[in-house]
Amino acid sequence: MKIWQKDKTALAEVEQFTVGRDREMDEYLAPFDVQGSLAHIAMLESIGLLSKEDLAVLQKELKQIYAEIAAGNFVLEDGVEDIHSQVELLLTRRVGESGKKIHSGRSRNDQVLVDLKLFLRHELETIVHETKSLFDLLQTQSEKYKQHLMPGYTHLQIAMPSSFGLWFGAYAESLTDDLTMLQGAYKVVNKNPLGSAAGYGSSFPLNRTMTTKLLGFDTLNFNVVYAQMGRGKTEKLVAFALAGIAATLSKMAMDACLFMNQNFGFIGFPDELTTGSSIMPHKKNPDVWELIRSHCNKLQALPNEIAMMTVNLPSGYHRDLQLLKENLFPAFTTLRNCLQMSRLMLENIRIKEDILKDEKYQYLFSVEVVNRLVLEGTPFREAYKQVGLDIEKGNFKPDTDIHHTHEGSIGNLNNEAVKALMDDVLKGFPFEQVHQAIAALVK
Amino acid sequence: MKIWQKDKTALAEVEQFTVGRDREMDEYLAPFDVQGSLAHIAMLESIGLLSKEDLAVLQKELKQIYAEIAAGNFVLEDGVEDIHSQVELLLTRRVGESGKKIHSGRSRNDQVLVDLKLFLRHELETIVHETKSLFDLLQTQSEKYKQHLMPGYTHLQIAMPSSFGLWFGAYAESLTDDLTMLQGAYKVVNKNPLGSAAGYGSSFPLNRTMTTKLLGFDTLNFNVVYAQMGRGKTEKLVAFALAGIAATLSKMAMDACLFMNQNFGFIGFPDELTTGSSIMPHKKNPDVWELIRSHCNKLQALPNEIAMMTVNLPSGYHRDLQLLKENLFPAFTTLRNCLQMSRLMLENIRIKEDILKDEKYQYLFSVEVVNRLVLEGTPFREAYKQVGLDIEKGNFKPDTDIHHTHEGSIGNLNNEAVKALMDDVLKGFPFEQVHQAIAALVK
Amino acid sequence: MKIWQKDKTALAEVEQFTVGRDREMDEYLAPFDVQGSLAHIAMLESIGLLSKEDLAVLQKELKQIYAEIAAGNFVLEDGVEDIHSQVELLLTRRVGESGKKIHSGRSRNDQVLVDLKLFLRHELETIVHETKSLFDLLQTQSEKYKQHLMPGYTHLQIAMPSSFGLWFGAYAESLTDDLTMLQGAYKVVNKNPLGSAAGYGSSFPLNRTMTTKLLGFDTLNFNVVYAQMGRGKTEKLVAFALAGIAATLSKMAMDACLFMNQNFGFIGFPDELTTGSSIMPHKKNPDVWELIRSHCNKLQALPNEIAMMTVNLPSGYHRDLQLLKENLFPAFTTLRNCLQMSRLMLENIRIKEDILKDEKYQYLFSVEVVNRLVLEGTPFREAYKQVGLDIEKGNFKPDTDIHHTHEGSIGNLNNEAVKALMDDVLKGFPFEQVHQAIAALVK
Amino acid sequence: MKIWQKDKTALAEVEQFTVGRDREMDEYLAPFDVQGSLAHIAMLESIGLLSKEDLAVLQKELKQIYAEIAAGNFVLEDGVEDIHSQVELLLTRRVGESGKKIHSGRSRNDQVLVDLKLFLRHELETIVHETKSLFDLLQTQSEKYKQHLMPGYTHLQIAMPSSFGLWFGAYAESLTDDLTMLQGAYKVVNKNPLGSAAGYGSSFPLNRTMTTKLLGFDTLNFNVVYAQMGRGKTEKLVAFALAGIAATLSKMAMDACLFMNQNFGFIGFPDELTTGSSIMPHKKNPDVWELIRSHCNKLQALPNEIAMMTVNLPSGYHRDLQLLKENLFPAFTTLRNCLQMSRLMLENIRIKEDILKDEKYQYLFSVEVVNRLVLEGTPFREAYKQVGLDIEKGNFKPDTDIHHTHEGSIGNLNNEAVKALMDDVLKGFPFEQVHQAIAALVK
Repeated sequence: MKIWQKDKTALAEVEQFTVGRDREMDEYLAPFDVQGSLAHIAMLESIGLLSKEDLAVLQKELKQIYAEIAAGNFVLEDGVEDIHSQVELLLTRRVGESGKKIHSGRSRNDQVLVDLKLFLRHELETIVHETKSLFDLLQTQSEKYKQHLMPGYTHLQIAMPSSFGLWFGAYAESLTDDLTMLQGAYKVVNKNPLGSAAGYGSSFPLNRTMTTKLLGFDTLNFNVVYAQMGRGKTEKLVAFALAGIAATLSKMAMDACLFMNQNFGFIGFPDELTTGSSIMPHKKNPDVWELIRSHCNKLQALPNEIAMMTVNLPSGYHRDLQLLKENLFPAFTTLRNCLQMSRLMLENIRIKEDILKDEKYQYLFSVEVVNRLVLEGTPFREAYKQVGLDIEKGNFKPDTDIHHTHEGSIGNLNNEAVKALMDDVLKGFPFEQVHQAIAALVK
Repeated sequence: MKIWQKDKTALAEVEQFTVGRDREMDEYLAPFDVQGSLAHIAMLESIGLLSKEDLAVLQKELKQIYAEIAAGNFVLEDGVEDIHSQVELLLTRRVGESGKKIHSGRSRNDQVLVDLKLFLRHELETIVHETKSLFDLLQTQSEKYKQHLMPGYTHLQIAMPSSFGLWFGAYAESLTDDLTMLQGAYKVVNKNPLGSAAGYGSSFPLNRTMTTKLLGFDTLNFNVVYAQMGRGKTEKLVAFALAGIAATLSKMAMDACLFMNQNFGFIGFPDELTTGSSIMPHKKNPDVWELIRSHCNKLQALPNEIAMMTVNLPSGYHRDLQLLKENLFPAFTTLRNCLQMSRLMLENIRIKEDILKDEKYQYLFSVEVVNRLVLEGTPFREAYKQVGLDIEKGNFKPDTDIHHTHEGSIGNLNNEAVKALMDDVLKGFPFEQVHQAIAALVK
Repeated sequence: MKIWQKDKTALAEVEQFTVGRDREMDEYLAPFDVQGSLAHIAMLESIGLLSKEDLAVLQKELKQIYAEIAAGNFVLEDGVEDIHSQVELLLTRRVGESGKKIHSGRSRNDQVLVDLKLFLRHELETIVHETKSLFDLLQTQSEKYKQHLMPGYTHLQIAMPSSFGLWFGAYAESLTDDLTMLQGAYKVVNKNPLGSAAGYGSSFPLNRTMTTKLLGFDTLNFNVVYAQMGRGKTEKLVAFALAGIAATLSKMAMDACLFMNQNFGFIGFPDELTTGSSIMPHKKNPDVWELIRSHCNKLQALPNEIAMMTVNLPSGYHRDLQLLKENLFPAFTTLRNCLQMSRLMLENIRIKEDILKDEKYQYLFSVEVVNRLVLEGTPFREAYKQVGLDIEKGNFKPDTDIHHTHEGSIGNLNNEAVKALMDDVLKGFPFEQVHQAIAALVK
Repeated sequence: MKIWQKDKTALAEVEQFTVGRDREMDEYLAPFDVQGSLAHIAMLESIGLLSKEDLAVLQKELKQIYAEIAAGNFVLEDGVEDIHSQVELLLTRRVGESGKKIHSGRSRNDQVLVDLKLFLRHELETIVHETKSLFDLLQTQSEKYKQHLMPGYTHLQIAMPSSFGLWFGAYAESLTDDLTMLQGAYKVVNKNPLGSAAGYGSSFPLNRTMTTKLLGFDTLNFNVVYAQMGRGKTEKLVAFALAGIAATLSKMAMDACLFMNQNFGFIGFPDELTTGSSIMPHKKNPDVWELIRSHCNKLQALPNEIAMMTVNLPSGYHRDLQLLKENLFPAFTTLRNCLQMSRLMLENIRIKEDILKDEKYQYLFSVEVVNRLVLEGTPFREAYKQVGLDIEKGNFKPDTDIHHTHEGSIGNLNNEAVKALMDDVLKGFPFEQVHQAIAALVK
């Protein structure tokens, strides 16, 4: 059943091809479609396109549908093209003709646009919370293991002393920058496209400022042509924001796989969190880390996929945009899972004691010796040369007593300052204002 | 001449392969390397690693070199590996042994890191200014041509009336969102990595907060392991910020090529801004727009290239990172050129009058007629059906009198509100603070 | 139930995360897993690791399972980790202890490797057949419409006369090159990795040449370390081969959308193959072409995704590889659908008559006039200048009588020669040999 | 000086923007442009568009220019737009009016197309030869080190015994598959687009079959619209072929960096082939391998860049295509350098003796023990369980005597068979036929 079909039957295979996986994708949008409709009808009433009575009836039923969705009792019926048609169908069944009136002054295009914005805004918020949880854990572990030294590598060669305090703390700090970029994407998302109709506006005297407030948006996508142009662009920004966090997790997973490798042997995990082999009885494999890495690297390819699907399309809506949902919508769940599994793993990590006592790590301390000579007055280049010759001749004596005191170093992790950075970023998200608006709308 | 070579000669071909195009890339960094060194030595003096006299001598010479760079009189001499060595060499030539002292408490790694940050910060600022200029022009043209109607397309099919006011205005508004994302990248860039040494900090009692202030950074990359981890990550964020503006220009260029096509024929440009053909004497080709599009699409592939080159590298420095410069550094010039050429074209654009009078555009007005029926009391679905049947039977009469009044529509472009959005974004850049810090450093 | 679990229970969430969508993906592999097992056990018997009796029992049951899969009666039971475990479970249920013997001399790694190769080989073949069908239709339409002239564009500007004969024929020829690349991928696929165990071979005296013949492979992946290295690499090559065909379809779809646009108006399709709009009753949108384009552009991003997920992984198996299935496996169905929908559309295409009679296309013929002057003795540069001046002054008189006779031109399409190219490519696929081997194995 | 400029002066900045780096890129094409012109004029004479005398004069001068290019004496003069104009200019200077006649029956479009094909064909051949040299070295080293065991890893965990014979041999075999894909690209390249003019053919009675033979092409791009459509497509295929070899080198480089890491310590290189650190006197860094990896990963992003720049462009030439040269042309040199540096490194590699004697590798042999139990009659699953329990209890006794005999295993590397595969691929390249044709043309 397609509302636009004008009594002609499209070929079934065309129907199947054009609908594709869109019904499945639409289920992600259900609650947000109702939110958008609630704001839209309140506005319609305010400009005289809906009677007070119709508004009351429609609000009651839409809130009922919203509750059904929240309770998991909403289904896209067979033969119903999309979520928007399903909501409209339920309304018409329950309240009769008035149900059809919610489509006035709105096109499918701006309806989808606002659904997407509301959905993305909501999903980004859950990602922020999960990211914050991982951040907190990383900071906790950084403090807990700040005395646990480990080798620091450059070029994958043993370089200088590092510590698990630094290692955990680095990934915590990385997440603050990731959320800074995500906040940029959130700001672009948090603007109202409703009222742009099919991308060229409407002759109805819509009050777009009113729906903006009702839906808790920061401001409008003003220009209606730009509102439509945001489709594809917004998805790409959001995908890039996810990819930033994913890149941090992927690198951490790579480190974890390397450090679990027996040649390093720095960290371990309980058997329950590792996996065996079908032919090698001694194996304890880091499958969880490998899958975090793989999921996250796939996420890193997502912005490029969206760019490839949207590049060189002239302005105005194209059906191509429909398929952007397929890899983006599940990406939020994927990233949330990766954030949660990272926490599970890091909570249960075991750190090897006294790693640096192994003789192969003695050269880690060569810079310390060079620096001590400098502090004692030897010019740097000469101190460097002297230690280099000692190493070549086998005369090098490490000074394993480390005193790093500057900001962000082994002995002065600055985790508090990093936490302040994170708090500052978090303050930039208007979550409370959004929650209040939505609560008022659906209560 | 490599400082680290300990009297052994690397094979010439290895030398050539490892240096590659790095000397060429380093020239971009020259002034920023001097800025970094000026901050570093002031700090070294403050912690007693440099005498007041040495500081004075070094400052004088570094400022002299800075002036030479600004005047275009700085060259990377044959056989000198990189910009950092060249600066050090000049210093040593001019002031003797003190010249070598600027390397204390610093590694090549954090020196490059800070140079990069300073360079990227500077380049992002110039992009912001160029973007603002294009934004202003787009808004001017939007106002100028707000009465010039054009067809709006969806699915590349004639859909509803649009206008050049909307078209220009849409791209202006697009740039505000692009700068919002760019601001995220700028914030990540504007943090100080200096003092992280080779990624594991230093046993010298460095004062990283002091260099942060001297260089006008917002704050520090605190954790030294994270400071190093920012390499590659920062470049990717910056590339994505550039790609956002590029995507806007590319779409505008695609529109322009389409609208110049004789089947559309909406816009034209003076002969001086179009190009001919070697075999077709009638051709006036939109080469400038095509090259803007192509450059900008190449820019859109850049974040993916950087991801591909850095993914799955464990933490710690790898030489791989050197090659990130090669496509990123020239990207700023490319994007600036594209912004400037877009302005040149748009300043000289010619808009066809009375486009919509052509009969083939009459159906554009069908939604207007549907909406009028709705405002007169017909339910939407029925009005839609009735107009559809009129169209099929050839009875459709367009109502070409358009009254769109809502926010962002043909009759109410809201360019002022969009300008306020842009001003708000611009206020978020701390350019003034940065300029003051750098001016104080090099004066 | 995991075979490797050594009586310990993994946490349910870890289980869910690690299994992910793999069970769903594994259903694609079911028949090929049985094929691989049939070859493996025949070989095991030949080297004395399985008795003749066990072989007979196992073959009977595996063929039974194969028939059940073909009939759609095979299900992955709840709690069974993967397809391989399911097959083994069924065997053990039905024949007891002997069922377990099929795992000797094989690791899960090479089992998956050979399943993948057999699956990819099969899917590539179906793509070849579908591509050939589209090729045939394109050639038919090229011949049918060889007299239908259309404008040829360069820079999207009207350039020279073209024809629908050329247009259809061009896409046919494009597919021959696409299949040439696909054949390269097919050759890489059609090599036997079975016997490489976990990527380091086996102490069992396996006869890998025997399984190679039984499974109809061209040859072996000899080196066992390379056999494992083929994972990820093979998927990338196959994805690129699909992307090649997809690029051809995408470009054709872009042309179709443009030519359907009313400003061009060269082609049309029956209402049943176009789609309407929810607010614009006059719309007939090319949704099918837009979705072909979008699906195909997504396919073009797939090789990059695979590269991103595999780059910088050291040699040896990593669990990361599991996730490559998720976008690759459905890609075959997607591309097949796109090939079929392209055929449906092109079979029903309507071509406008006498397009070039429209006055705006007169300059198309300027090159013809230049060339006639050249043939009459005027030097090219002068003829070009003269015609250019005529056009500027409005004196240009087109000569619309076109005689292009050279190979591949409007008047001499060379479709037969292109068909010969295609036949030549098709001869390079050893489909018959493969079918015979598989038929013998499962009969 | 632009030939098409019709006495009007384009603005200098437009000129600069549109020419961009194209003059630099054109220098790669110089000899191939002359080859194409030599074939073209011989054909023009054969169809009566050039006199025998003019042909003789033009051939003489073109061969002279060809020799000058080969000798490095050819320069693109200031103010000359491109290589094609430069060649024409030289001809006109030296032989007067006849020089202008070479442009008859040819457009800049098909001239560039054929130049590109000839250039790509030539460059692909040099890559094949360099790849073959590396292949030979890898096979030599595989034989030399076939007794040198090393740990084999899965999931980066110690898994089973491997050997340097396997390791070198795997990368050799990888190159055979890479050249199979490259051969697909070569076949697509080796077809003649000359005579397609601006993509719509010509009214001149060109003999395209003749130029096909003269230039040593396999066959024609028949359809003239397809000939033009090959631009962008061909570059993408070639880039993917390069990326295949690059992926092999990148993985090898990753392995090398890991194996050089002191925690592994399997391999080493002479000091001359490693690099030091500016602050750590003990460092010997694998910069050469890291740069090979980085260059090769950048190459792996190239096909995606080309796709991004060409996707969604309708058929017909667009100026966008010009910029494809900028990253593709230098890619051949980059890949050749990486192939040569890989050889330099591998020729000088030092392999550690008796790696597996280290206690931490004892579990490598657990599969051997399981398999021995199986061969002695224990069912696999029970043998697996028993060895697993032994390992857990610390009772495991490795059996370090390895007898792997099957195809491609430690004890039976099958390097000869792999060499036969490679020889078979090499036979598929028609290099000899190409050399003869070109030699006849320019002699």
